Amino acid sequence: MDIANPYLLFLGDVPDALAAKTALGVVDWRREWCLGQNRLPGCQADAGLPDMTIDAAARAGARTMIVGAVNAGGRLPDHWIASIVAALEAGLDVASGLHVRLGSIPAIREAAERNGRKLFDVRHSSETFATGKGTKRPGLRILTVGTDCSVGKKYTALAMERDMRARGYSCDFKATGQTGVFISGRGVAIDAVVADFISGAVEWISPAMDPRHWDVIEGQGSLFHPSFAGVTLGLLHGAQPDAFIVCHEPTRRTMRGVETPLPSIQDVIDLTIRCGQLTNPAIRCIGLSVNTAALGDGEARAYLKDLSAKYDLPATDPVRYGMGPVIDRLARDFGDA
Amino acid sequence: MDIANPYLLFLGDVPDALAAKTALGVVDWRREWCLGQNRLPGCQADAGLPDMTIDAAARAGARTMIVGAVNAGGRLPDHWIASIVAALEAGLDVASGLHVRLGSIPAIREAAERNGRKLFDVRHSSETFATGKGTKRPGLRILTVGTDCSVGKKYTALAMERDMRARGYSCDFKATGQTGVFISGRGVAIDAVVADFISGAVEWISPAMDPRHWDVIEGQGSLFHPSFAGVTLGLLHGAQPDAFIVCHEPTRRTMRGVETPLPSIQDVIDLTIRCGQLTNPAIRCIGLSVNTAALGDGEARAYLKDLSAKYDLPATDPVRYGMGPVIDRLARDFGDA
Repeated sequence: MDIANPYLLFLGDVPDALAAKTALGVVDWRREWCLGQNRLPGCQADAGLPDMTIDAAARAGARTMIVGAVNAGGRLPDHWIASIVAALEAGLDVASGLHVRLGSIPAIREAAERNGRKLFDVRHSSETFATGKGTKRPGLRILTVGTDCSVGKKYTALAMERDMRARGYSCDFKATGQTGVFISGRGVAIDAVVADFISGAVEWISPAMDPRHWDVIEGQGSLFHPSFAGVTLGLLHGAQPDAFIVCHEPTRRTMRGVETPLPSIQDVIDLTIRCGQLTNPAIRCIGLSVNTAALGDGEARAYLKDLSAKYDLPATDPVRYGMGPVIDRLARDFGDA
Repeated sequence: MDIANPYLLFLGDVPDALAAKTALGVVDWRREWCLGQNRLPGCQADAGLPDMTIDAAARAGARTMIVGAVNAGGRLPDHWIASIVAALEAGLDVASGLHVRLGSIPAIREAAERNGRKLFDVRHSSETFATGKGTKRPGLRILTVGTDCSVGKKYTALAMERDMRARGYSCDFKATGQTGVFISGRGVAIDAVVADFISGAVEWISPAMDPRHWDVIEGQGSLFHPSFAGVTLGLLHGAQPDAFIVCHEPTRRTMRGVETPLPSIQDVIDLTIRCGQLTNPAIRCIGLSVNTAALGDGEARAYLKDLSAKYDLPATDPVRYGMGPVIDRLARDFGDA
């Protein structure tokens, strides 16, 4: 599955920015792939791109329309179907992060067939995976893990890719969630894979490669989240990371969407090493990545300094301060680029 | 999903007993539900039931034909389709443990519709699950866990149900794998659920119930198996067991199908408690269940005695000696029936 760019981002008529967060994430990290946005009357989200009609986007060279918004319930509203059909008629592929499969809607399936266009449902994998093997494969891997869901694992992995490349490392972000798939143009939404194939799918996402190349693999969930820890463990075993980064949000008091209290950072480090050693005995933590958006600059710096001293690890905010300190540790432990 | 019995077991023309192990497991535990077996010419498996034609089974009151055998590759051979259609025409439902969905084969789907019969694909869940909540729910739960796959977790759970009932406990075996589903007439093959819903599906399988009732939940995989540990962890979190039993096979040297070495029993106890405490802080191990088939009787007794002393836990072989010692420990820790 390779999603061709440049993209036209379809935002529909969603009521707020949160409903368009997939599109906003794509613009954050791949602005150069985004020609424009297409919005229906009443849309309350804005990705900060030029508004374009579908035909204008096609004339400007758009290859794929990304359905980068969700309405309540993850359904595809009937009145979005006409826009999707229009994109296919204009010669674009269409990629969606909705739960419903685009091809399950006859008008869309027929338009895709009629025009020879591709439909990508990134929440559904069309690949057939083998079960995980667990044997060590060449290449180096970083995995981002979290004290909870939604604490910056994707953002941290993308910031590592950006900042490691700036330091001359050969490295690639590897997507395991829907927004990440749009950002990298490939990957698998690992939480949508059948349970038996979680680690096998990750082995497929990050196969054997050059021994000095790094894959920076986007983590999912948390080993301490009672809804999703199975996904997290399968991802850890499949990724067999040499190094991991713990992502954290300091104001969170319970795990997202449930009543379970948050684990400590030390809990996450210890259990990740305990479980990760099964497929990579040399696994180690190389840093802490904190979303300090709720703190002032001085407060954030003091907090990160305390964390760094407490755990003897570099601690940074990827948005405010970049991943430099973590890459310094990576260079110390694994060598320069 | 409630599969009606009595059953007719369809064995096809499989080349050996291993290919019919699902059917053999059903006979081991639910002989009273099995009217007979239906075999095609050349079949090398024998479930020890009367051979019956489909029409004779229907006349004798069979309600469901179980496709309890798999050919190489898990495919449905073309020449089995006629038997399945014949069962539907004779008024039976059909339940299958094959990877292919019965309803995806037009001749089978049409015969089911024409005769108003049900098709059960136990490897595919038609239920929609919520994600796991992780909150403690009423009732008591035992989970069987393993040092590896295929070490007797299902057998141990069924033996616990049988022996606990004999001691007056209110308890039910809860299936999480395909053979278990046929044996109990309900349940979910947890390894076929979409990864995000593993723990949620287990919460559905074993919902809130009478505070003195025990569910004995069939485990899957192993926390130390690099292919399937994600399934195992989601199952552990969803089951939130009060008590668990470690199942073991003493001659195994590497995890099934991979090169990973076997963990120690202590490793399994420690990590199960470490992870299980997330949804049940009081989780404890109540015994060891060992498949000693490879040992002579004296050797087996000595081995179990050593294990019991080493771990300060009852140790038994469910086939040779029953689950009595483990139920004694259950009674000590949680009270009599």
